[in-house]
Amino acid sequence: MNKLNVLLASFLCFSLTIAVSAQGTRSRVAVVDTVILGGTVVTMDGGRRVIEDGAVAIKGGVIEAVGTRKEITAGFRGRRVINAAGKAVVPGLINTHTHIPMTLFRGISDDLDLNDWLTQFIFPAEAKNVDEAFVRAGTRLGLAEMIRGGTTTYCDMYYFEDAIAEETKKAGVRGVLGQTIIQFPVADAKTPEDALVLTERFIKRWQNDTLITPAAAPHAPYTLSTDHLKAIKAQSDRLNSTVVIHVAETKKERDDILTQYGKTPVEYLDSIGFLSNRTIAAHSVWLTDNEIAIYKRRGVGSAHCPQSNMKLASGTARIPEMLAADVAVGIGTDGPASNNDLDMWDEMDTVAKLHKHATGDPKAVPAEAAFEMATIRGARALNLGNVTGSLEGGKAADIVILDLDGVHQLPMYNIYSHLVYTTKASDVRTVLIAGRVVMQDRRLMTLNENAIKIDARRYRDKILNSLKN
Amino acid sequence: MNKLNVLLASFLCFSLTIAVSAQGTRSRVAVVDTVILGGTVVTMDGGRRVIEDGAVAIKGGVIEAVGTRKEITAGFRGRRVINAAGKAVVPGLINTHTHIPMTLFRGISDDLDLNDWLTQFIFPAEAKNVDEAFVRAGTRLGLAEMIRGGTTTYCDMYYFEDAIAEETKKAGVRGVLGQTIIQFPVADAKTPEDALVLTERFIKRWQNDTLITPAAAPHAPYTLSTDHLKAIKAQSDRLNSTVVIHVAETKKERDDILTQYGKTPVEYLDSIGFLSNRTIAAHSVWLTDNEIAIYKRRGVGSAHCPQSNMKLASGTARIPEMLAADVAVGIGTDGPASNNDLDMWDEMDTVAKLHKHATGDPKAVPAEAAFEMATIRGARALNLGNVTGSLEGGKAADIVILDLDGVHQLPMYNIYSHLVYTTKASDVRTVLIAGRVVMQDRRLMTLNENAIKIDARRYRDKILNSLKN
Repeated sequence: MNKLNVLLASFLCFSLTIAVSAQGTRSRVAVVDTVILGGTVVTMDGGRRVIEDGAVAIKGGVIEAVGTRKEITAGFRGRRVINAAGKAVVPGLINTHTHIPMTLFRGISDDLDLNDWLTQFIFPAEAKNVDEAFVRAGTRLGLAEMIRGGTTTYCDMYYFEDAIAEETKKAGVRGVLGQTIIQFPVADAKTPEDALVLTERFIKRWQNDTLITPAAAPHAPYTLSTDHLKAIKAQSDRLNSTVVIHVAETKKERDDILTQYGKTPVEYLDSIGFLSNRTIAAHSVWLTDNEIAIYKRRGVGSAHCPQSNMKLASGTARIPEMLAADVAVGIGTDGPASNNDLDMWDEMDTVAKLHKHATGDPKAVPAEAAFEMATIRGARALNLGNVTGSLEGGKAADIVILDLDGVHQLPMYNIYSHLVYTTKASDVRTVLIAGRVVMQDRRLMTLNENAIKIDARRYRDKILNSLKN
Repeated sequence: MNKLNVLLASFLCFSLTIAVSAQGTRSRVAVVDTVILGGTVVTMDGGRRVIEDGAVAIKGGVIEAVGTRKEITAGFRGRRVINAAGKAVVPGLINTHTHIPMTLFRGISDDLDLNDWLTQFIFPAEAKNVDEAFVRAGTRLGLAEMIRGGTTTYCDMYYFEDAIAEETKKAGVRGVLGQTIIQFPVADAKTPEDALVLTERFIKRWQNDTLITPAAAPHAPYTLSTDHLKAIKAQSDRLNSTVVIHVAETKKERDDILTQYGKTPVEYLDSIGFLSNRTIAAHSVWLTDNEIAIYKRRGVGSAHCPQSNMKLASGTARIPEMLAADVAVGIGTDGPASNNDLDMWDEMDTVAKLHKHATGDPKAVPAEAAFEMATIRGARALNLGNVTGSLEGGKAADIVILDLDGVHQLPMYNIYSHLVYTTKASDVRTVLIAGRVVMQDRRLMTLNENAIKIDARRYRDKILNSLKN
């Protein structure tokens, strides 16, 4: 070999080395749909990892990996890259109790006794206005508000829930949606028996959907007979489906049930075999120690609605005790007719402050516990703890990216304090649900905001007119 | 006169008539600096007028007239016209209790006992960081947040209050600013005597300012001797100046004062002749009926800080009783180290909900009463009831224009419900103080937002470093 050949061989060899290592690198880098790059990633995983300059890789709607920017860029290349530098990347929020179409009744009557509120305003307004079209318009309005505030999963209870499921699916939002069953005639069912038939059809239609978890929603222990409650439980056992119910919202309810059945509400429900890990019990304000223990033992999920409970003067749920017992208790806004919004950030802030106030202990329900209730503990409450509520491999890519640099947010010392006590719904910038971008830089991608607003104003006039007659 | 002449004369006469009436109209239309045109004008005047498609005329920083669009356009022509169609036009909010430089400590330590919070974090952080430059940077940050949230007047208590006054004046914000006087050595005074000298100079410098009301700020009855409190009162009588003080914030304070002086805090202060209609008493959580009556009799203003009281588990101020007694009680956020923001919308919402919860009466503190506390009643609390707090002729043009068409705000049935339960700081669009536009379409006009953010981040690092040593 002459010098030239040696040189040529060296060059070829060198080139081959490069090609091989490039090939090697390429083979190690997996191509995914989306990579979120940068920002403070608050995982809410078991180790409660908070990753500075983190990243998330997403494929097929599922989180492939969560790590530092360096780790993720070494392992993944996204067809789409979302820059989250300087922002927070957090699990989508879980609103565990709503009546979403009632968004159209937002603020229709406030500062009233519960009875006056129901009989003078809500029941007449519902009787005269609730039909499928109303439910669809109200749902779209509520969905728009929820997405704008970073809520990616919600648990609902209303009439025409099949229409709610269609609208929710279309908007790309995750929902546990409960078809109401109640003793008296309502808009979509004359009797509980009719409602049970409707519920069965509804559950069977949606049961295998990736976003929608269909459920039965018996209204409350005091608005259904024991036989009806048993029939609903039997149906849910047969279909392996979820049940959403109001429990022990007011002292009156607790006292009435105690008088009627000789047991407090949760003890009564447990005595008829009603409770399971597929039960979601909203409010649960008036619980005894034993009832909290029953929730834990049966795996019942609970939805704490502090602002609604305060506004209607219903009492204080025993959240510190429920957390100490590791009950799966999430946070709910309740319907906007009684709150008056679907804002989970406000609600978190109230959770953290209310229980300090109620117990006299400023260490009660710290910020991290409140954020946990709004995310992974809320997911557990809905029996979706394996699906959503935290950022970790294998879970659905339900992710919220939010600003951290408003003047109301500076300076920042602790991310959980900031999320709970400082962050507002308006700080949410981009929202993904099952990997799909449903809001990008505050622009809704799956809903027509203008049409929703026009509908809301039109329904306002219609509702006001209906109440005049 | 021939026919032509008659016609000509008639024509001339007709033309003259037109000219005269045009002249007459012109002379009736006053030229003003600004007219805000359209929108729902919530006046908070004595008659609580809410004017649909209303308008406000402003001249020389003062409101000339408030009326319907038709009335105002008939009488006034603005050099500048602000279109408020579809929006709400409301009085600027009054934050009756802050420690504004502490915005730089926002969230530095949460979920702690008051004592741990003070001794482990706040006092060391203050000792190592508070100087005039810190106070200026913190004030600018807090002012930016307040303006963005529609607060036009605030009542403060801190150190280096002269620097706070300069920054506040520069930003064009209205302030009742209290120079702290306390028993132990602090950043700007070694003794209460030093602080009294400082306070005298401060009050004399600012006493005739149109925006700044300088005040003495004795910290609390338990951190000053009776003699010092008397000296402060004598000074304020001599200068006809305002006094800001914390009163009865905690049960411990109430019990300690009772033990030491044989009287509850307000009774004690009244017994030494301390209280007048120039006193602003923050918190006032632990009051007896008699103490509420003393507030009313002496014309003492009070600042209710519900979120701070909840977060620090201080108790529930007796707001329904204070309103029933017509005490001038406003709403305060307290410092962002304990809240963690300067957001009056959040605070109003909490006021309306907390007292329903506390009393068990869902009719307690209705939305209108909460909004009144955040505006005209808050102005009265600061002894500025003749200056600001409502939209009416002769008052300062402290005005907030806010969006009403976010999806979280639709539909709207009742304006007060909407302002208190639904509106967020981010809905505020344009803010005028004394007729000067300090925020236009969410852009700050008197503060450099970028510089403020850079300062906030720089101070964060400095503060964290100082706590390591």
